[in-house]
Amino acid sequence: MSLTVVGSIAFDSVRTPFGERERMLGGSAIHFSLAASFFTEVRVVGPVGDDFGDDEVKVLEERGVITEDIERIEGGETFFWRGHYEYDMNVAHTDDTQLNVFADFDPKLSDASRSAEMLFLGNIDPELQRRVRASCAAEFAALDSMNFWLDNARDALKQAIAEVDCLLLNDAELRELTGEPNLARAARAAMGLGPGVIVAKRGEYGAALFSGEDFFAIPGYLLEDVRDPTGAGDSFAGGFLGYLDSRRAAGEPPDHAILRQAMAYGSVLASFNVEDFGTERVRRLTRDEIEERLRAFRRITAFDVDPITT
Amino acid sequence: MSLTVVGSIAFDSVRTPFGERERMLGGSAIHFSLAASFFTEVRVVGPVGDDFGDDEVKVLEERGVITEDIERIEGGETFFWRGHYEYDMNVAHTDDTQLNVFADFDPKLSDASRSAEMLFLGNIDPELQRRVRASCAAEFAALDSMNFWLDNARDALKQAIAEVDCLLLNDAELRELTGEPNLARAARAAMGLGPGVIVAKRGEYGAALFSGEDFFAIPGYLLEDVRDPTGAGDSFAGGFLGYLDSRRAAGEPPDHAILRQAMAYGSVLASFNVEDFGTERVRRLTRDEIEERLRAFRRITAFDVDPITT
Repeated sequence: MSLTVVGSIAFDSVRTPFGERERMLGGSAIHFSLAASFFTEVRVVGPVGDDFGDDEVKVLEERGVITEDIERIEGGETFFWRGHYEYDMNVAHTDDTQLNVFADFDPKLSDASRSAEMLFLGNIDPELQRRVRASCAAEFAALDSMNFWLDNARDALKQAIAEVDCLLLNDAELRELTGEPNLARAARAAMGLGPGVIVAKRGEYGAALFSGEDFFAIPGYLLEDVRDPTGAGDSFAGGFLGYLDSRRAAGEPPDHAILRQAMAYGSVLASFNVEDFGTERVRRLTRDEIEERLRAFRRITAFDVDPITT
Repeated sequence: MSLTVVGSIAFDSVRTPFGERERMLGGSAIHFSLAASFFTEVRVVGPVGDDFGDDEVKVLEERGVITEDIERIEGGETFFWRGHYEYDMNVAHTDDTQLNVFADFDPKLSDASRSAEMLFLGNIDPELQRRVRASCAAEFAALDSMNFWLDNARDALKQAIAEVDCLLLNDAELRELTGEPNLARAARAAMGLGPGVIVAKRGEYGAALFSGEDFFAIPGYLLEDVRDPTGAGDSFAGGFLGYLDSRRAAGEPPDHAILRQAMAYGSVLASFNVEDFGTERVRRLTRDEIEERLRAFRRITAFDVDPITT
């Protein structure tokens, strides 16, 4: 049971209608690994600069995340993103992106990271995703991406997708990737590229899962307080793959029932992520809170099937 | 057990990426009553012109809908709507609206319609909705509306909402009505206007229910073939209220479990509605198909709750 994540490690400055924060710990690999840490052993791979200090490392280590493969680039600065959200928090507005050490990122994985049983390729250049995938032994690899790579490296992205077992994308991106306006058809088309499991992320509306002939849909957990949606998709992926790894049977693909539970755990982690800025909520999260919300989630989505009586 | 619906009866000309149709039977009262007819006795109230013939009446009567209160305006023409959809079928583009006999609609309800136990006020002028509500004995009344009335008759709409037990609106309209960007808060605020039950319709993403302290969310049923979304919201309302009426206990508000099942039945009816143009699919629908899809719906949304094992 072990899970390696390769992705961005960042400082994020974020403004929403509910407040703002400067230079919070962020990035896809960070949100993913904190969420996954509740379920399994996580190794995080990514570059940082001199501005990445002990406080940041401590956030990860307090959650048991193994940080040996965080690569310090001397004289460099950590990836920086500045953005804001209006009241429609499904849409992030980017105000500034400074790639910094991320511009020349050349992932170097330790033997331990390479031999993890599961691998998550966060949203980075698909050529890097391919190289990492090829260097890892993982029995089950998943990939996230975004419209930037669809527009600028479509062929490489398609090849990267062909080499993983699970693709996670926003529903609009899945439609763009396949040219299919219908989500169910888009998911089938994406399966045709290679992965047996497709997860369509739908922001506040939840997520849908396609695997083999099976499909599953879960609404978003309805929250009265959403303060900062940054990282929700990566927290979803962390909960989803972290749970899958915790229930993994060697040599077998995850079964449908476990995939569904993983979707629910992913949704729960995403729902906590957005309750506060950056990693603030997930940092102070407990397993009891996760399981309590999972039960609540089941309550708010469950219905009986009684026949028509008239 | 009886349900009266007051709303538009129309001819719709619709073009989608999957075909087009001229002058199909449509309108909120039509889609609603066909959907509700699978569950209870439905009376439909609304005006039509000379162009509304026996063929149209037959569609309703074949489903057992009572058409006595369809008012024929001699020398008049039936309400007409022309619209189209692009690949994003969540958005209807209106190309032409001819109110015709609907412009001077003054609802006249028979004693039987007025004494029905449930009432649905389809999307019409809120002053008319209020007048109909006041003239009816219904123990449980529900109301649908749209942004046009929010923009042009906000105060009247708020008064109409205050006089019903259940409000159904698109989620964006619920936010606009209350000025609350967060859906859960918007629903609470709408409850503050009067209704104890709020249903937020979310197009292909499903629907959410708020009643008292309870809430419930259901994703949209994932279909590979969506041909025409016109009337989906009214079919949802018809399935929802039709089922509620079939399970009604006199003098008592609907309980949470029944409201949830009603949400599922509403979603099922909406999912059939969109599979073909206008009323084509619901017309040939059977109870067995409805119940089969309800079971399928439960399968695609259900998950177990297993604790974290590590």
